[in-house]
Amino acid sequence: MTPHLVSFPPPPPTSSEKQRYELTKFSHHGRFPYCCEGVCCLGDRSGLGIVYRDHSMMTFETNQVQGLENIKEKLGSLPFRKLVHQITTLDAHPSAQSGSIIVLITGQLLIDDGEHPQKYSQCFHLIPDAGTYYVLNDIFRLIYG
Amino acid sequence: MTPHLVSFPPPPPTSSEKQRYELTKFSHHGRFPYCCEGVCCLGDRSGLGIVYRDHSMMTFETNQVQGLENIKEKLGSLPFRKLVHQITTLDAHPSAQSGSIIVLITGQLLIDDGEHPQKYSQCFHLIPDAGTYYVLNDIFRLIYG
Repeated sequence: MTPHLVSFPPPPPTSSEKQRYELTKFSHHGRFPYCCEGVCCLGDRSGLGIVYRDHSMMTFETNQVQGLENIKEKLGSLPFRKLVHQITTLDAHPSAQSGSIIVLITGQLLIDDGEHPQKYSQCFHLIPDAGTYYVLNDIFRLIYG
Repeated sequence: MTPHLVSFPPPPPTSSEKQRYELTKFSHHGRFPYCCEGVCCLGDRSGLGIVYRDHSMMTFETNQVQGLENIKEKLGSLPFRKLVHQITTLDAHPSAQSGSIIVLITGQLLIDDGEHPQKYSQCFHLIPDAGTYYVLNDIFRLIYG
């Protein structure tokens, strides 16, 4: 299963109905990036061009990259091949730009076949485009301790 | 000490120089909201109008409110009077709107005089205005377990 085909959990009641609808529609397009709930195969970078663009920016832990090709390279270079995500909270707000969405996710993940879940937090800035969304900003941090 | 007078930690190397500069300038104006590192007295809501506006939106755990007065009321109604924050990571990206900034913070806090730090994550969307910034989006979640 690729990161782009996993099912997306419904936003909690804290998300407005509009964001709930938009995020659900977005997920139904199978276009939410690798962070969403389910099994993500980071080796499979096909389709990342759907969710990231040349001006997208991603921070993954201490690494910040910009641009689709750099994001593909970064995700493909991660020292693990499989992530199992479980989203604990997902909150969404409308943003300044018409139709764009700010999302904060907290959750936990299992790396490869590990047995000890690792907590993480991730925020996105999603920009509407041609009936779906792309990720302009993606900041991911593990929660240690 | 009010939330608006605490010092702001320097962003880590993952933040671009521009965001590092802007966030530092913002903090030097003493205008970063209650989340920043230091002691925050949530009972003191003076100055919140500097960092939130009538169209600002805040999610604090499971509560989502919009508007300066609603945010003041929410922060003033929290069942604790003092937070001691320690920021673990702070990452910032430029956003779509010219000069705006997306920030993800992870850290821990002590509520009132508690002894057990509680991990949290918070994201902001900061909009430039008249030489400083206001908070358009503020999403805060405790990290349990």
